[in-house]
Amino acid sequence: MAAKKRKKNVVVLGGGTGTFTVLTGLKNYPLNLTAVVAMADDGGSTGILRDELGVLPPGDVRQCLVALSSHDKLMRSLMNYRFVEGGLKGHSFGNLLLSALEKITGSFDEAVEKASEILRIEGRVVPATLEKVVLVARVGNRVIRGQNAIDETNINGALKKISLEPHPHANPEALRAIKNADAIVIGPGNLYSSLVPNLLVKGIPEAIRKSKAKKILICNLMTRMDQMNKNSVAGFTREIESFIGGPLDAIIYNNKLAQNSLLTKYAKEHETPTLWSDLPEDRQTIGADLVARSLPSGQNKGDILVRSLIRHDTKKLAATIVSALTNPAKKK
Amino acid sequence: MAAKKRKKNVVVLGGGTGTFTVLTGLKNYPLNLTAVVAMADDGGSTGILRDELGVLPPGDVRQCLVALSSHDKLMRSLMNYRFVEGGLKGHSFGNLLLSALEKITGSFDEAVEKASEILRIEGRVVPATLEKVVLVARVGNRVIRGQNAIDETNINGALKKISLEPHPHANPEALRAIKNADAIVIGPGNLYSSLVPNLLVKGIPEAIRKSKAKKILICNLMTRMDQMNKNSVAGFTREIESFIGGPLDAIIYNNKLAQNSLLTKYAKEHETPTLWSDLPEDRQTIGADLVARSLPSGQNKGDILVRSLIRHDTKKLAATIVSALTNPAKKK
Repeated sequence: MAAKKRKKNVVVLGGGTGTFTVLTGLKNYPLNLTAVVAMADDGGSTGILRDELGVLPPGDVRQCLVALSSHDKLMRSLMNYRFVEGGLKGHSFGNLLLSALEKITGSFDEAVEKASEILRIEGRVVPATLEKVVLVARVGNRVIRGQNAIDETNINGALKKISLEPHPHANPEALRAIKNADAIVIGPGNLYSSLVPNLLVKGIPEAIRKSKAKKILICNLMTRMDQMNKNSVAGFTREIESFIGGPLDAIIYNNKLAQNSLLTKYAKEHETPTLWSDLPEDRQTIGADLVARSLPSGQNKGDILVRSLIRHDTKKLAATIVSALTNPAKKK
Repeated sequence: MAAKKRKKNVVVLGGGTGTFTVLTGLKNYPLNLTAVVAMADDGGSTGILRDELGVLPPGDVRQCLVALSSHDKLMRSLMNYRFVEGGLKGHSFGNLLLSALEKITGSFDEAVEKASEILRIEGRVVPATLEKVVLVARVGNRVIRGQNAIDETNINGALKKISLEPHPHANPEALRAIKNADAIVIGPGNLYSSLVPNLLVKGIPEAIRKSKAKKILICNLMTRMDQMNKNSVAGFTREIESFIGGPLDAIIYNNKLAQNSLLTKYAKEHETPTLWSDLPEDRQTIGADLVARSLPSGQNKGDILVRSLIRHDTKKLAATIVSALTNPAKKK
């Protein structure tokens, strides 16, 4: 009798729409998924809830819960529903759910657990830290406090330091998931809003370095030139590796440009395609046409910024990640 | 082989805390419960949602859903949770759930159905009407618009007319439930806020009169003397019968006074015990000690007004109702 094959443990590290896309695609495969989610968000509905209720930021966790939900479409639409009128304007229902549960149970952890049950999620959503933190950046001589403020800043390569204050301990569940992972998938996502805040949590870079998991980076399709001064796959890889303090194993990147009309729109926002002419050496590099032609289901129009008109195709991306899982990296 | 005994269809007509109490007690019996809920509320969180989002009033429906929920305690606490800070202050989470679902589906009916599924309710909650209405009262020469405003008015027996504007059609589901009922339980509840608004809906009084159901009134424990000028079981019965346009079959009333210290508090709010010295003739009358010594579970402290410190005991009340169901009324 053949032994039953163990499901691979895959940790997806990130937070925003990019992570939603990865999870939405990967949940169709027989994988044991854990999303490790950044906790530095302070914009929009999440920012108001943090300020007014003193809760932990629910927005990124909500997106991951919706991605992993096996509940019906209406339930997922409900979680992403944003009120558009009156005093509730801008609040996403799922954020209110998480904040109300945190208030009742006194614990964000328990709130996420209960919401996971309500949404019947397959896999797990784990906050990177359970401490209240503020993202702080030193850009030239200026100190900018808050993820939202940093997101709106033209850093243009002048970033001296970025950190979470106070320097938070990792959620033990996040460290455990990273330790036991067969693969760790980082990105795609806004560099300083979704990816780096995970890597600033005490213990997380070390855990990634020590983990035997295959470490896979999904490069962004587009690069914000006001935040990074190099728009290549090699540049993005180096940036992430500098925060991990160690090498990645495989780099997945898009190798087909989005349509011209969209690229023109993005150019006006100082975003240009991440170029694959410059690839990192000594890493497994996997290029594919990864651009989506339509919006993923379950995602709310209210959540779509101009900046995410060009996005990854969930199915193509998931298939590429899964091929990287089974295809051993040529380690240097 | 004995035929399986059909569960009795019991319609509970009302809306507020009284109906919550009746449903909480009755759901422990093998009955097929339908709550028919008044739709004229315009105070508090419900009023704000009506004004700002243009939705139907969720508050009373939410209370009935919580009462019939077979979900765990945390889920029921979540539905009754009220935000206490910031822009969300005063909103009950369950109200937000119903309003968000109404916005997404475009139908209050579907919203109630989906919420019923989420809360795993046993039985059904049916809005008396699906039209947007305002409760209007003529008191002496004044016209008072809005249930909340009427609730705060010292009517003191000077009520000339009370109506819903525009005069709404009944929800066909409500009429069907009344028609097929084995028993209709009316009250307890605030006369003009919870009970009468059901009886002002086109078709509902006729349906009650025509129904073969046993019609059971649960008298309030206390009478608001600023709204009625007669605090007896007979007076309360006559008032309800005047809105139905026909007789009730059985009257359940409390026959043991609450403790003195509470009665003193109520007296300051112009509420006195409903007296059983004056009982209606030609009706089955069932007196019992029905006063609760503690709060029913699942009810949130935020929902408890000074006015509801004296309340029915869910178990005693349910047992009394069930005895009335099986005990045939001596019809006149």
